[in-house]
Amino acid sequence: MTRSSGSVFAVQDGRSAFLDACRGQDVDHVPVWFMRQAGRSLPEYRAARGTGSILDALKSPELAAELTMQPVRRYGVDAAILFSDIIVPVAAVGFGVDVEAGRGPVVARPFRSAADLQRLRPLDPSADAPYVAETVGLAVRELQGTGVPLIGFAGAPFTVASYLVEGGPSRSYAATKTLMRSDPGLWRELLDRLADLAITSLRSQVMAGASAVQLFDSWAGALSPGDYAERVLPATRRVFEGISDLEVPRIHFGVGTGELLGLMAAAGAEVVGVDWRVPLDEARRRVGPGHALQGNLDPALCLAPWQVVAGEVMEVLARGGGVGHVFNLGHGVLPQTDPEILKRIVDLVHAADPAELCSSEAIV
Amino acid sequence: MTRSSGSVFAVQDGRSAFLDACRGQDVDHVPVWFMRQAGRSLPEYRAARGTGSILDALKSPELAAELTMQPVRRYGVDAAILFSDIIVPVAAVGFGVDVEAGRGPVVARPFRSAADLQRLRPLDPSADAPYVAETVGLAVRELQGTGVPLIGFAGAPFTVASYLVEGGPSRSYAATKTLMRSDPGLWRELLDRLADLAITSLRSQVMAGASAVQLFDSWAGALSPGDYAERVLPATRRVFEGISDLEVPRIHFGVGTGELLGLMAAAGAEVVGVDWRVPLDEARRRVGPGHALQGNLDPALCLAPWQVVAGEVMEVLARGGGVGHVFNLGHGVLPQTDPEILKRIVDLVHAADPAELCSSEAIV
Repeated sequence: MTRSSGSVFAVQDGRSAFLDACRGQDVDHVPVWFMRQAGRSLPEYRAARGTGSILDALKSPELAAELTMQPVRRYGVDAAILFSDIIVPVAAVGFGVDVEAGRGPVVARPFRSAADLQRLRPLDPSADAPYVAETVGLAVRELQGTGVPLIGFAGAPFTVASYLVEGGPSRSYAATKTLMRSDPGLWRELLDRLADLAITSLRSQVMAGASAVQLFDSWAGALSPGDYAERVLPATRRVFEGISDLEVPRIHFGVGTGELLGLMAAAGAEVVGVDWRVPLDEARRRVGPGHALQGNLDPALCLAPWQVVAGEVMEVLARGGGVGHVFNLGHGVLPQTDPEILKRIVDLVHAADPAELCSSEAIV
Repeated sequence: MTRSSGSVFAVQDGRSAFLDACRGQDVDHVPVWFMRQAGRSLPEYRAARGTGSILDALKSPELAAELTMQPVRRYGVDAAILFSDIIVPVAAVGFGVDVEAGRGPVVARPFRSAADLQRLRPLDPSADAPYVAETVGLAVRELQGTGVPLIGFAGAPFTVASYLVEGGPSRSYAATKTLMRSDPGLWRELLDRLADLAITSLRSQVMAGASAVQLFDSWAGALSPGDYAERVLPATRRVFEGISDLEVPRIHFGVGTGELLGLMAAAGAEVVGVDWRVPLDEARRRVGPGHALQGNLDPALCLAPWQVVAGEVMEVLARGGGVGHVFNLGHGVLPQTDPEILKRIVDLVHAADPAELCSSEAIV
């Protein structure tokens, strides 16, 4: 393995360790970013954000770009991620969805029948949600010269569908699974429409300057492998195929997806996100060759004393093996997380030598 | 393989298919019961139960025994399970915990420091919660002659601890994991006390007539394998060892435990419960020989049309392989479930020939 000399900085020689790691290429340090790195854990976020609805905040590109940039400045992470929400596209086409603080997306009139498909017309990014591309543009301009790329994102068809059908967050996904199994034709149509919304949204984000994308299928882990393979994977694959010509790294993430990792890898993304339940060396076996991994420190462990956190970070790095690994949490930053701990994690990850991690993999 | 001639009845020749299956012995039909088979899905439950707190309802042995019996009468399941709650022992020693309808256990003063250990004194079943053994006695008396055994149960140390530490249901278990990793000594003491409470409670239920026990570690799936193995498994193993002399089958169940199945099997139970995320043939590989499996139909699929349900039931039976399999859902019955569907599931499971399932296992 050839690699450039060690460095603890995110960017060297104009190359992005994040983009290189996504493509399985050699890196001089393991790149790191955090899901929900922008958000309530940051005092500067709470100060800038105010108390209004997140959907209103997103309509101010200046504010959304500022929130996007805050964690980049504070932590020195290897990637920014657009400050947005997975329900923006469905909200923008007028489905009728809001985000309740502390609860999540809520839908006044949940998706119930074929008539509701009319509430999911195609997205026209420049007319329906011009603020998204504007935010991307502002953030990318501010990132220029830093070498830090911006990640765009969308919700995967299943996870967005679960909010539309349940009317809000759920533990059992009973209404979603009932629709899926009682009206398979309508279910496929719903997922195809949501796939198209995701494609359109992701394409516009990349056109505006995003260098990578992540598809959040956060709740796919609620499904059995059989249901996932037959009733969800086709629409997800369609999303990844619909952006394959853009040649940006694509990340595919969900929580509790241990049994689905092989199937998720087959959906087409370059990178598979893994939560903390599956050690990365085992995840690599399930995902198979040709994919990078992203993860997987338990976000709850960020609340433990630093010595505990540091030990866990080193364990994740060792199991990640140094190459084809983007360090991240296994799910989003918890609001009560001390930003200082995240900063120390970034520094610790950057200080590790990928070549040593690579050779240590076998003895974990 | 030798077995008696086929029968669709739960009991034959005074033998219990449920107890035989737990022990991996041949059965003339695959036994079936449902977690939360007693509860809100039954109209006769809603009629008998009224609207008061469940903890008050449990203090009436006549009512609790009646609620225990209702699903046995209606469904013809192969086992009754005591109508109770996993927080009864901690409530009975005065920790200060209640159950909110639609939310679950809530704790006014969560467990925070060593001083809170004093709120977890040993349980004296006959003085602190005499109604539990009385309910067991009444139910066992009513079950006499039917050959249907009664399952007693307790909450596993981790899952009960999560309620005491979080103060209620949680998605991240952040406070619990923080205590676990910031004060390992206190964590071990807490889990050992909860293990002792579970042992005392389970022993008294068996002494009163329960023929099997289930330990619910419902939320253990939130843990990484490393955390589980080092910080939870020892206390759980202690529970199973503490009742091993009673020689009743012991069932060990949690949700989302795909990565933990091997470790959970090592805790000592004869039977490992599996949710719907891991197909039973794969679960059997992870659990290893010498254990029976319990599961694992997705409870949400019980809301689908009967043809869908029937297909899924047959799939679970095929993957279960007929021997060493107790049919169940992968988690509790959802309140909106039609009891008629559960009745048809019982009949379908009983009609299957274990010998044919056994020979079909290889071709699933």
